[in-house]
Amino acid sequence: MTSRGGAAVVISPAGEPRLVDPERPHVVLEDQALTRGDGVFETMHVLDGNAYKFAAHHDRLCSSARSAALPAPSAATCRTALRMALDAAGPGSRDELLDLGAEHAVKLSISRGVPGGAPWAWLTASPVPAATFAARRDGLRVLLLERGHDPAEDTDLPWLLPGVKTLSYAVNMAAVRHARENGAQDAVFMTSSDHRILEGATSSVICARTAPGVPPTLVTPEPSRGILPGTSQARIFETARAHGWAAEHRPLYPRDLLRADAVWLTSSVRLAVPVTAVDGHPVPTDPELTRALTGFLVG
Amino acid sequence: MTSRGGAAVVISPAGEPRLVDPERPHVVLEDQALTRGDGVFETMHVLDGNAYKFAAHHDRLCSSARSAALPAPSAATCRTALRMALDAAGPGSRDELLDLGAEHAVKLSISRGVPGGAPWAWLTASPVPAATFAARRDGLRVLLLERGHDPAEDTDLPWLLPGVKTLSYAVNMAAVRHARENGAQDAVFMTSSDHRILEGATSSVICARTAPGVPPTLVTPEPSRGILPGTSQARIFETARAHGWAAEHRPLYPRDLLRADAVWLTSSVRLAVPVTAVDGHPVPTDPELTRALTGFLVG
Repeated sequence: MTSRGGAAVVISPAGEPRLVDPERPHVVLEDQALTRGDGVFETMHVLDGNAYKFAAHHDRLCSSARSAALPAPSAATCRTALRMALDAAGPGSRDELLDLGAEHAVKLSISRGVPGGAPWAWLTASPVPAATFAARRDGLRVLLLERGHDPAEDTDLPWLLPGVKTLSYAVNMAAVRHARENGAQDAVFMTSSDHRILEGATSSVICARTAPGVPPTLVTPEPSRGILPGTSQARIFETARAHGWAAEHRPLYPRDLLRADAVWLTSSVRLAVPVTAVDGHPVPTDPELTRALTGFLVG
Repeated sequence: MTSRGGAAVVISPAGEPRLVDPERPHVVLEDQALTRGDGVFETMHVLDGNAYKFAAHHDRLCSSARSAALPAPSAATCRTALRMALDAAGPGSRDELLDLGAEHAVKLSISRGVPGGAPWAWLTASPVPAATFAARRDGLRVLLLERGHDPAEDTDLPWLLPGVKTLSYAVNMAAVRHARENGAQDAVFMTSSDHRILEGATSSVICARTAPGVPPTLVTPEPSRGILPGTSQARIFETARAHGWAAEHRPLYPRDLLRADAVWLTSSVRLAVPVTAVDGHPVPTDPELTRALTGFLVG
């Protein structure tokens, strides 16, 4: 039960942030985030003290909390907690290759608290792990795994928490473990019925087509169809369009990934990680495009 | 972050149980049971110090842990932890109507621990809440909610953790909240495609047909088809058959619940709770049969 270091802030039910020692325990054994995965969260990327896409993350946190009938700390409270944590979190870590600056991963979570008690929240700030820098540099081999059903079918069933980023990630973690046991490094979900690509276990999937003399075309699956809308994917698309690129939502199948000129997993801290193989088949990478996408996120 | 009382034992990664104060925090903010719902659990019923179905619960805990690539404490360690907790947990609570004895609810959970750290486990023993006694006495109105897909489709997809009792229960909890917001008290899942009954949000579903002069017939959906096999349902069926009753696994649909002579939600601590209404339609209860089923569980 030791921690990885960094800094932590507990936000009381009354919304008061308090810096705490992340090495010490702060959660009782009956807390429902612990016993039921009953809470919601966001993960943010902090570069030289600046939290990227803070508003998008806070908006999605509030949306998740609303769907789960939880209160969310205000943006001002979250910013105060973030500042307290970063002031105490140490120098962060540096991606030697990308040379972006001092990097922290920040998680902001809300718990329902103990039964009959009050919801509370917490924020942790940690150095970005070396494995993340390695993934950005070397890319990841991914395994396509069936999701068992099309989550688009859940869109109208609010009790299934569609589009809610809950703390109940056991299946996502199991998918990544399964990928690692089978020669890959990360998992991408697809529907069982027609093998339509959905999303990574903890990321969005974007692929690109390129041709000489014209701007690239980026494609990702329609994010409202049962897929968690990725804040990184959204930012990349928004900025790509502003640069005159085409950026489209349409169904993707395994063959589309294999025929693409580049494929990435995108998420807040990992940024745009090149996919180097899908189910053991190599896919091309495009370092220049990867740099461009990374620049769209942290530029 | 206050607790409801009772007693708690933390089992170290080395398998050493230690009595702890349940009112105090014991979990760090980066523990993956907290941040990812990444762990497994069991809930047991203890009556006058005896843990019912202990072996069935420990077997299912081990099965869940194996599927989730987690180590499970040995049965001997769990029994030691249970004894330590019960010795400290106080007198428990009593169901005045059923008069079964002193009752405790015991939860045994395994966490993956912090990233890069070691898995650990914990056990809590609490008095059975008054709401549970009320449910046994007055029954529950249930709402049928679509599950969005047939979990039987997940059976061959191990990364979806089929049949694993993980800590990722956010959807189960949301289903119960949805039921309560809509005039009911608990939720029962059914398939979206053909409205086949699956299971309660935290229970199994059993219905009965009765006729004068012949033993009752109990029916529950096939538990291996994507439904968590209920230890209480299994014990009821085993004992019912030993008494010469018919006890069958077959598909159940909403009309079967509405036409049944009695319907129950069964789970370890609540025992056999009569269902009094399904989607607002009253269903009959049979107090004598409820007593019989309860006796099958704690007799």
